[in-house]
Amino acid sequence: MNRFMGLHEECGIFGIYNAEGNCARSAYYGLYALQHRGQEDCGIVAMNDVKLSCHKGAGLVGDVFGEKILNELGGTMAIGHVQYGGRNGSLGGSIQPLTLTYIKGSLAIAHNGNLINSDALKREFEFKGAVFHTNTDSEIIAYIIAQARPHCNSVEEAVNQAMKRIKGACSLVVMSSRKLIAARDPWGFRPLCIGRKGDSIVFASESCALDSVEAEFIRDVDPGEIVWVDDGVLHSNRENCVSKSSLCIFELLYFARPDSVIDGQSVYEARINAGRCLADEYPINSDVVIGVPDSGLVAAKGYSIATGIPNDDGFIKNRYIGRTFITPLQTGREEAVKIKLNPLRATVNGKRVIMIDDSIVRGTTVVPIISLLRDAGAKEVHVLSSSPKFIAPCYFGTDIPTRHELFAFNHSTEDMRKIIGADSLGFLSLESLSKIAPDSKCGFCDGCFSENYPVTK
Amino acid sequence: MNRFMGLHEECGIFGIYNAEGNCARSAYYGLYALQHRGQEDCGIVAMNDVKLSCHKGAGLVGDVFGEKILNELGGTMAIGHVQYGGRNGSLGGSIQPLTLTYIKGSLAIAHNGNLINSDALKREFEFKGAVFHTNTDSEIIAYIIAQARPHCNSVEEAVNQAMKRIKGACSLVVMSSRKLIAARDPWGFRPLCIGRKGDSIVFASESCALDSVEAEFIRDVDPGEIVWVDDGVLHSNRENCVSKSSLCIFELLYFARPDSVIDGQSVYEARINAGRCLADEYPINSDVVIGVPDSGLVAAKGYSIATGIPNDDGFIKNRYIGRTFITPLQTGREEAVKIKLNPLRATVNGKRVIMIDDSIVRGTTVVPIISLLRDAGAKEVHVLSSSPKFIAPCYFGTDIPTRHELFAFNHSTEDMRKIIGADSLGFLSLESLSKIAPDSKCGFCDGCFSENYPVTK
Amino acid sequence: MNRFMGLHEECGIFGIYNAEGNCARSAYYGLYALQHRGQEDCGIVAMNDVKLSCHKGAGLVGDVFGEKILNELGGTMAIGHVQYGGRNGSLGGSIQPLTLTYIKGSLAIAHNGNLINSDALKREFEFKGAVFHTNTDSEIIAYIIAQARPHCNSVEEAVNQAMKRIKGACSLVVMSSRKLIAARDPWGFRPLCIGRKGDSIVFASESCALDSVEAEFIRDVDPGEIVWVDDGVLHSNRENCVSKSSLCIFELLYFARPDSVIDGQSVYEARINAGRCLADEYPINSDVVIGVPDSGLVAAKGYSIATGIPNDDGFIKNRYIGRTFITPLQTGREEAVKIKLNPLRATVNGKRVIMIDDSIVRGTTVVPIISLLRDAGAKEVHVLSSSPKFIAPCYFGTDIPTRHELFAFNHSTEDMRKIIGADSLGFLSLESLSKIAPDSKCGFCDGCFSENYPVTK
Amino acid sequence: MNRFMGLHEECGIFGIYNAEGNCARSAYYGLYALQHRGQEDCGIVAMNDVKLSCHKGAGLVGDVFGEKILNELGGTMAIGHVQYGGRNGSLGGSIQPLTLTYIKGSLAIAHNGNLINSDALKREFEFKGAVFHTNTDSEIIAYIIAQARPHCNSVEEAVNQAMKRIKGACSLVVMSSRKLIAARDPWGFRPLCIGRKGDSIVFASESCALDSVEAEFIRDVDPGEIVWVDDGVLHSNRENCVSKSSLCIFELLYFARPDSVIDGQSVYEARINAGRCLADEYPINSDVVIGVPDSGLVAAKGYSIATGIPNDDGFIKNRYIGRTFITPLQTGREEAVKIKLNPLRATVNGKRVIMIDDSIVRGTTVVPIISLLRDAGAKEVHVLSSSPKFIAPCYFGTDIPTRHELFAFNHSTEDMRKIIGADSLGFLSLESLSKIAPDSKCGFCDGCFSENYPVTK
Repeated sequence: MNRFMGLHEECGIFGIYNAEGNCARSAYYGLYALQHRGQEDCGIVAMNDVKLSCHKGAGLVGDVFGEKILNELGGTMAIGHVQYGGRNGSLGGSIQPLTLTYIKGSLAIAHNGNLINSDALKREFEFKGAVFHTNTDSEIIAYIIAQARPHCNSVEEAVNQAMKRIKGACSLVVMSSRKLIAARDPWGFRPLCIGRKGDSIVFASESCALDSVEAEFIRDVDPGEIVWVDDGVLHSNRENCVSKSSLCIFELLYFARPDSVIDGQSVYEARINAGRCLADEYPINSDVVIGVPDSGLVAAKGYSIATGIPNDDGFIKNRYIGRTFITPLQTGREEAVKIKLNPLRATVNGKRVIMIDDSIVRGTTVVPIISLLRDAGAKEVHVLSSSPKFIAPCYFGTDIPTRHELFAFNHSTEDMRKIIGADSLGFLSLESLSKIAPDSKCGFCDGCFSENYPVTK
Repeated sequence: MNRFMGLHEECGIFGIYNAEGNCARSAYYGLYALQHRGQEDCGIVAMNDVKLSCHKGAGLVGDVFGEKILNELGGTMAIGHVQYGGRNGSLGGSIQPLTLTYIKGSLAIAHNGNLINSDALKREFEFKGAVFHTNTDSEIIAYIIAQARPHCNSVEEAVNQAMKRIKGACSLVVMSSRKLIAARDPWGFRPLCIGRKGDSIVFASESCALDSVEAEFIRDVDPGEIVWVDDGVLHSNRENCVSKSSLCIFELLYFARPDSVIDGQSVYEARINAGRCLADEYPINSDVVIGVPDSGLVAAKGYSIATGIPNDDGFIKNRYIGRTFITPLQTGREEAVKIKLNPLRATVNGKRVIMIDDSIVRGTTVVPIISLLRDAGAKEVHVLSSSPKFIAPCYFGTDIPTRHELFAFNHSTEDMRKIIGADSLGFLSLESLSKIAPDSKCGFCDGCFSENYPVTK
Repeated sequence: MNRFMGLHEECGIFGIYNAEGNCARSAYYGLYALQHRGQEDCGIVAMNDVKLSCHKGAGLVGDVFGEKILNELGGTMAIGHVQYGGRNGSLGGSIQPLTLTYIKGSLAIAHNGNLINSDALKREFEFKGAVFHTNTDSEIIAYIIAQARPHCNSVEEAVNQAMKRIKGACSLVVMSSRKLIAARDPWGFRPLCIGRKGDSIVFASESCALDSVEAEFIRDVDPGEIVWVDDGVLHSNRENCVSKSSLCIFELLYFARPDSVIDGQSVYEARINAGRCLADEYPINSDVVIGVPDSGLVAAKGYSIATGIPNDDGFIKNRYIGRTFITPLQTGREEAVKIKLNPLRATVNGKRVIMIDDSIVRGTTVVPIISLLRDAGAKEVHVLSSSPKFIAPCYFGTDIPTRHELFAFNHSTEDMRKIIGADSLGFLSLESLSKIAPDSKCGFCDGCFSENYPVTK
Repeated sequence: MNRFMGLHEECGIFGIYNAEGNCARSAYYGLYALQHRGQEDCGIVAMNDVKLSCHKGAGLVGDVFGEKILNELGGTMAIGHVQYGGRNGSLGGSIQPLTLTYIKGSLAIAHNGNLINSDALKREFEFKGAVFHTNTDSEIIAYIIAQARPHCNSVEEAVNQAMKRIKGACSLVVMSSRKLIAARDPWGFRPLCIGRKGDSIVFASESCALDSVEAEFIRDVDPGEIVWVDDGVLHSNRENCVSKSSLCIFELLYFARPDSVIDGQSVYEARINAGRCLADEYPINSDVVIGVPDSGLVAAKGYSIATGIPNDDGFIKNRYIGRTFITPLQTGREEAVKIKLNPLRATVNGKRVIMIDDSIVRGTTVVPIISLLRDAGAKEVHVLSSSPKFIAPCYFGTDIPTRHELFAFNHSTEDMRKIIGADSLGFLSLESLSKIAPDSKCGFCDGCFSENYPVTK
């Protein structure tokens, strides 16, 4: 599964408090670092005094924002969001962060994740006469906050009430006129961390976004925790920190950037470990091990370290393929793949090759890739997936196809091997999966591989 | 007051039901005809089965919509809106029509006018936990509808409840999954009319928009009336038709297109009449009467008809000046005016000239215009305004400057004459104003000229 | 023939010398005033010291140029060009002004007109090994200048040599490193005039462009004359002023802006005169005389003056129809015309109407216009054309359709009347045509009406 | 030297003949594969019958071309070009391919390289009265072809005459109405190769572009050779194949894509070899060897292979940084580098690190990169450059800064080491350089490292 080949990404969120201003610009750099979590829409909302300013648009961060806009946004606080946008259908205006007014003035909100009780919550509010402008979970959460606020002493307490009512995945940043708030659902499905640079405080989906603004990593927001900045001071409420934590394991395997550290676990090392585990499970006699760029590369390195089989570049990836790329006429995916990936004959010609990809979902893109290797002279092609078999849906924000389309749900491993034309085929086992994150302070959700979900409707 | 010189326009609304589809395309033509009512933002929402599709953007109708978009929108119903957008400040997403979901599914709404009890209504809802995405009156009206709906038998009844609660100007189109609804506030501040073409039914701010889709004018929506199309049949509810009607008189003087007929009165003839009345009040011995393009031209013709003084073209207007026009450096307004308007020496050289403008608001643009005429050889320049003196604010949607900026509030006529450098200066009197619309079935609001308002907070 | 209905316009050229700089900005205003002469492409080239800077693009002047670009261009000299661009086919880069280097450094060039010996000249250069980047006459003229330059003492002398070699229409501005040159072909087909503002000197296609930069009109460039500015001083060479002059009469009838004065003749008055002549030739018993906006309006006024029949607005034109306008589906031109023009029932209902258009070329657009008037209640519709019948091609830059498409070439007047459904139909006679410009110091070319051409291949 | 940090790239050229059409689309894929050779401008010219169609623009291939444009271009032949555009200064229209007409009709031309006798050639033509629209060498070559053509039997013979007259680097594709021609200067400074797919024939700067259209690599065009396709048949003229060949060695080190094979040498293996040679020259006692992405990565792998020191990912590069990236305020390059590159603490913390970059030109970007590594915990940072020291200009198209700016020209190695703050610093020696391309059939130009140039003015 490669980023340019279709599986949709998660969202990324970012928030910053800096009394000296220019927060929108910091959010810009933060979103740049989180761009891998969503390339379709992005937005930044900044607070100057008690006034919200907002700029959002379709496209990459670098295309949506320019110098002039960032200067106009300014901000002593700002929150930002990147997302894969197609989910939200025909209703306009669903690019996050949402900006709202409610009884206490302005509110901006952005989240990452998927609620499983959103329909029930929405229905409840509609009966009371609510109108919805979007079909985002953010708007539902905003409603809970707005309805709780008259009965609470503070906006952070209203956020606390909201977090009690939701079920599912939700890492959240909220900005009121004076406070910047971050919250993580009790299961901790999606990552969220805290950084500091001088007197400024930063919240971000991944630690790589802290690095991009030169903020020092402080700690992760704990599952269930609510943290907020009030007049420069960081506070925490942990009364919802009650569940067994369940970070989405696919964050480590695919979503997150390798230079991020999530809940104590280096993403890079988790992928090295996945490669090592594959080496234990599938010790294949071969000449070279290669990764499918970009996300299969690290696991291939891990396999090589464990086995001593040389790791080399099997493909050169065209770095310029963008969203406007025009697909070749009258041809299958093979030609398209060929423009995106070109095999290195020097690496594979005459060799027995182990090729590691980060996952095999539908089984369609792997076929032309194998074919490219054979055309380039590979004698054998052994395929390993650094993820286990996808057999079940995800209810928490990962865009898994229906079972009907899931290769591993519909075929045995041997059938799959024949269909894709590999000499052998292996997937990381669930047992190995449990070993890839030894440094993590978190439990994991592996529902898409195991059908065990930590929370249900 | 000329359109390109700064006074902001009203909104325009349009709705169409046509079981055979393609309603978005009709809305496009309708909005084209209403473009003079707002050039900053526009939007169209179409209904296909029970599914809303929406496209909105900043700019002129012809720039925002293309063939492909219109085909995708389609629609067996559609509503559209053009507006002057600057009013809505920092909150994004306030381009109308608004699209919402509520307890009964989808709802789209667009309006023209300004409520005077919007703050009170908003506050009421915020106390109940409402969130607002925009600061449009449309959103407030949507809330009233949504809150009333569970207690009503139909959406048109919920609209009826909403119209009872509002105070101020509001011509409205609403589209639910199955019904197209139009409503006009009980005072009838803003125009709204009904047309028919075959089996399709059209609602529009002005009759010129009916002409653009070749629909036959049926009648105006009466002040206070609610009309709706249900399965192709037009219905009406007149229970709110109780007040003395008060159409904004400035619609006839300036806002509306001359080829529209509003509440029985031809706009063109109203402006001819204004010129005739000026002739009665200010019979000036002169050689030629000219109008300031575009909206002073018709009154100048009326003056000429009444007096026999020849009417000629005094200026050529540059038709290509757009919103991106770059103002000349280090110069006053004069040079800018000179690029927009060029006097015709052939018409004014050596002549005593009567120049009629549609209004004099701040008194700034008329100065360079007079100067242009004198440079082109005019011996005398007599200035007449086909509107009375602006002395008071408007609460119902006309963007009148503050009193501080109103030329006539701060100066006597003689002072104004000296400041602008005219040989004489006259304004239409309030008495004459009452005579310009003999065919109208409506009363009028002339609050900005008289300080008499038909409704107050 | 209305501008938005298809007949293509001429080009406009502008040049300015101002030692104090900012010439590009002046060119911007000049081109704005000349925009009616070409709306597809535009460009400005500025000279700072001996360095050319250039910006060109497709679109209106206001869209192609912005504040930043104008500031960067600067210039102590500048030339500019607006054009109808479709003529130049598949070769890119043919937006004028052209910028070149030649033996003496940089050269910029822009022209208005059409050479009839361009093919022969091009062939001659190709035999010597020339390459052409465009198919503009400007490039051919540049070649003549470049080839003559080594044998001449000055660039203006090389331009003089070029003007001797060309046949046909060519008003020209040329800018070398130090000099600004303007030239008009010996027949004077296209207009060109000289203005002054303080120490700066301006050349422009029409006097309205002088007005836009507040320059004083000095005089027209005479047919055959070459004028140039060298270090702030204006010079002239009249050795080619030998032919009988032949200004394109259609400049007065249609191309030029009414506020321009060309070769001594006010364009506005020429159109008034055309209306007067129509009144002499076609004294029709009727109730009202109307013009087709915009270019038929002035002739209608002239007819009214001569006859006393009231002149009124027959149509409201939609000012917002741009080049991206989407044509109605499955309908003839009638609906498109209806969106662009809406008849004023108040003016025409129950009346015998004389409708004056500036010309009838293909006879297609006049049909739906007449139909609109009848639908609005006109009892009779008498159609007059303020141009004579088009019966022949133009070789000098006016984009006349082929004879096959010329309505008047293929039909008798009575046949035409029947086809368009008018009660009567009349065209200005050639005899009258000769009387419309009594103030002109020029002779005229009326080849498209008479088949008499002042110069042939 | 990293691509996103400033050194400008070469051009890429592509040509295809395919009687069955759709050549523009193939050119699109070819240019995509050559995008690394120039990201500022691109263009494609297609031939349909004898008619040229052209589309060019500023930006990446994927942004400049869309489905509609490619379909309109079509083509039974096409040529394309990507370039770094800043070189060409103020004259517009210098995006290649150039399209021209000359005595025999249409001609399109695109090249890669830099002539050293262009000024003399240009002067010669200017004396004969030539005008130049651009300052590209392509236009000069076009002139030679056009002047030679009347004295030659064919266009390929005219190209042959042109290649005899030029001095310097020039890989060329030319398209006449019926023929597709490719030529490489006698020194072979820039690469050029031939491919075939069925009956279609392809010319391209690098073999990776053949792969992208699934063409089979046939052979390189030899230095001095002219090849052409006439009615589907490939011809060759080798009469200029006389010089000692001198491929730019920097093509192997930096310009070319690693999956290309140039003159027999795999680019990937050449970089592996550079890393091996560095290992021989600089055997450093360390824990890990890392490359600076992207172009230092392969050499790092080579160093690791030779020494057994583990090769690991030292940095994660942000793949989304585009040309519109906004540089951080009030900060040095360090923060900008930090957003582009993030060090992997897991890899470098507590380690002695060898960091290999492809080159050190100005010595500015390497400073913050070393600092990043130290902040991430590296105990030692040893820097190796897989290129020798840059000490001299390039006359053949590589955009080397002036000597004033060349780090290695102005400082001793030890001085440089101190300035950049490395523990040690080494550059590939000229002796080693001669060993990195054992498979090449070509000699090399290493003038920028050695001051020995194969041809001089």
